[in-house]
Amino acid sequence: MSLPFPEYWPTPSPTVAFRERRRRWAERFSGNAVLAAGLSRPRNFHASRFPFRAESHFLYFVGRHLEGALLVLREGQPTLYLEPPHPDEALWSGPTPSLEQLERELELPVRPHAELELDESYATLPPPDAESAFWLSEWCGRELEPASGALLEGADAALADAIIELRLVHDEWAVAQLRQAAQVTGWAHEAGLRGTRAGRREATVRGLMEGVIVGCGMSTSYNSIVTVHGEVLHAERHDGVMRAGELLLCDVGAETPEGWAGDVTRTWPVAAQFSESQRVMYELVLETQRAAIAAVAPGVRYRDVHRVAAATLVRGLTRLGVLRGDPEELYERGAAALFFPHGVGHLLGLDGHDMEGLGDRAGYAPGRQRSVAPGDRYLRCDRDLQPGMVVTIEPGFYQRDGLLAGAGALRDVIVEAELARFADVRGVRIEDDVLVVPTGSEVLTEHLPKDVAELEARRRAG
Amino acid sequence: MSLPFPEYWPTPSPTVAFRERRRRWAERFSGNAVLAAGLSRPRNFHASRFPFRAESHFLYFVGRHLEGALLVLREGQPTLYLEPPHPDEALWSGPTPSLEQLERELELPVRPHAELELDESYATLPPPDAESAFWLSEWCGRELEPASGALLEGADAALADAIIELRLVHDEWAVAQLRQAAQVTGWAHEAGLRGTRAGRREATVRGLMEGVIVGCGMSTSYNSIVTVHGEVLHAERHDGVMRAGELLLCDVGAETPEGWAGDVTRTWPVAAQFSESQRVMYELVLETQRAAIAAVAPGVRYRDVHRVAAATLVRGLTRLGVLRGDPEELYERGAAALFFPHGVGHLLGLDGHDMEGLGDRAGYAPGRQRSVAPGDRYLRCDRDLQPGMVVTIEPGFYQRDGLLAGAGALRDVIVEAELARFADVRGVRIEDDVLVVPTGSEVLTEHLPKDVAELEARRRAG
Repeated sequence: MSLPFPEYWPTPSPTVAFRERRRRWAERFSGNAVLAAGLSRPRNFHASRFPFRAESHFLYFVGRHLEGALLVLREGQPTLYLEPPHPDEALWSGPTPSLEQLERELELPVRPHAELELDESYATLPPPDAESAFWLSEWCGRELEPASGALLEGADAALADAIIELRLVHDEWAVAQLRQAAQVTGWAHEAGLRGTRAGRREATVRGLMEGVIVGCGMSTSYNSIVTVHGEVLHAERHDGVMRAGELLLCDVGAETPEGWAGDVTRTWPVAAQFSESQRVMYELVLETQRAAIAAVAPGVRYRDVHRVAAATLVRGLTRLGVLRGDPEELYERGAAALFFPHGVGHLLGLDGHDMEGLGDRAGYAPGRQRSVAPGDRYLRCDRDLQPGMVVTIEPGFYQRDGLLAGAGALRDVIVEAELARFADVRGVRIEDDVLVVPTGSEVLTEHLPKDVAELEARRRAG
Repeated sequence: MSLPFPEYWPTPSPTVAFRERRRRWAERFSGNAVLAAGLSRPRNFHASRFPFRAESHFLYFVGRHLEGALLVLREGQPTLYLEPPHPDEALWSGPTPSLEQLERELELPVRPHAELELDESYATLPPPDAESAFWLSEWCGRELEPASGALLEGADAALADAIIELRLVHDEWAVAQLRQAAQVTGWAHEAGLRGTRAGRREATVRGLMEGVIVGCGMSTSYNSIVTVHGEVLHAERHDGVMRAGELLLCDVGAETPEGWAGDVTRTWPVAAQFSESQRVMYELVLETQRAAIAAVAPGVRYRDVHRVAAATLVRGLTRLGVLRGDPEELYERGAAALFFPHGVGHLLGLDGHDMEGLGDRAGYAPGRQRSVAPGDRYLRCDRDLQPGMVVTIEPGFYQRDGLLAGAGALRDVIVEAELARFADVRGVRIEDDVLVVPTGSEVLTEHLPKDVAELEARRRAG
């Protein structure tokens, strides 16, 4: 059987990558600190668990999913502590490297848990849930609250800021990982595009896409969205039958074994062609996305990239006659949020929404806070862009239930008769992963089809 | 593109199934009780979560993954409590049924969380982790320990026993679900078999198999094992390159949207043919499995099915010259465990290891306890079989590191020179899902290829 995806295997980062990151960490943070790999989570019951995925801060410095391990920085020196493999476990889990082997492989001192002594002076970062918080609290000798990124104080806050500084700007090895994630994410989207047919289910396409990701040795970096209801932003149902005349929105990304994420959305027609109205609206979203990508460059404030997208969309909708009035004024009044209620994107790295476990501390520069305006409240990032940062650029157009009813004072600017022409466009989103480079930006997911003609050609060739 | 799997969609159980189960629950348990659907679990961080999978006891009576819902039995009447959908959530999650709609669909009174009042008299079952234990403790007004199935007391123990009694013997709707899981599990294995080739990775086969499962609207019921190191019982690595001359062991199962599990293992050659030694050993494991399946019948003690398997394997190994001595005596001395160290199988239902969240309370009949003997200590079930029970039958043959060194007093019975002939057999397991019927048993996964000739033909046709 010929494979529905390439034979491919991800290349791990070299040992030096992690050594160098740990060195830079010690340079930036002078106190003592501990980072937990975390615990696996139960699925059905205590002993039936989801695959273990280490916490991202830990992965950044160690690169391996070592359940229960703790990376300690003490007087500038990192040491890894974990439970030595139990001989009885070999029958079930296979040979596990001894601590000595691990020490050689990682080029990092590795000691057994039993030798670990921490006190409350050790800084740490918020665990994701009560289970890990309880576990880590026992080690640290102080009560840690889960998921309280916004409330960090003292040494914990300083630790968070040091790590944010490192993780914000990706080193060459991180970029190499993100390129691999983008590569496999691309193959997944190609497989989904080729397998889309009227009469099939959304789940069929999801299976084709996730099969590629797993088959290439990766995992999904977030719960896949594969839906003919693109207007539902985080749709997690896949039971719908796809019908000719509908658009299929696929927001699916691959994650490398070291945890680096791809995050891509494409929207394509279920039948082999966009309808005229779908094509027109799709091309407006694409114009919007291209304008936003063009705005990405060092020194640019990310909120302004968002605003470029929103303004471009409003201008286009005015041009199409869907909105009436002066585009600048409409934009100022927040008209973009009627159809594009979320932010233009977010940081991307080891997490799909990178470092959002620290609340807005990573996404927002010090002193900046989320706006409460409808168009900006869901903007997850407002940093000045620097070379090495990776952000997603993902504007969209959505027609939601109650759109007119919820438009408030803006209801008058919507030309209902013109909007009705686009009734077969429920939701379009186009998302790419964009690396900031000294001269502007590089789209890591550039190789994925995006133009109407390209999408239609692949869809027909399927 | 023609699909690598059938176009298929699982059929849900009718509403009456759950109503009837709730009725039977109230009949068997006279106190007040509460069953939690549970909470989703974080993956990367608090807001980036694994797909929510409700707890199995809850699914049994409700059939839907309603995060945070609580099913209360009060004076014999069930009521479902949950948080009403928040209007702001519709943008992200799509339209969610109102409590009134849900009440009509489920034919069950549904009330908002705000109206729920419990006291410590309500019986409940152990939550899977500290996070859910903390949450449920707040509702119940008493401290609940996570995963303490073995230690239940009083009303909690009575509740567990009532539910075990129900869940042990599957009703027609449960069997219909298990048949669907078996169907899709079969397609997954067929896809894996056809896609196996020397030079490809284990992950390639895993991707093909899981693609089928997701594409058919199901999820994996446990973490897939796809490995050329079948001797590692719960191998979770898939990075190995498959080589001609190796066997690939695939233990992969599908779970229906209502939570019912398939659990199947097949072992096939990476090249198009078994070697002579592989064929001989495979056929012995198959003979062992068939003998165990033939022993399944109402009134039979499951431990005796395990013993049939162990004795068959020992007789076969003696016949092959790998063991020397009298087969009966070898069996009595525990020689089977040298090569077959785990149990012959387990209960199957809503969990891969059904109800193991209650410790051995479900798997072992009252008054029966796990043996500490090497051959029996991992036996997960020792019940008298009844029509409607579903068990897996999954004997294996494994050559592990240190086999000879760890054989102790049994070392002398192993004929090393003869065993050396089977050096290319690292691990073979053959597992099917078996329903106990009044006349004996029905193999729900009978349609999957299992004979050497069948496996080779499909492998070649791939």
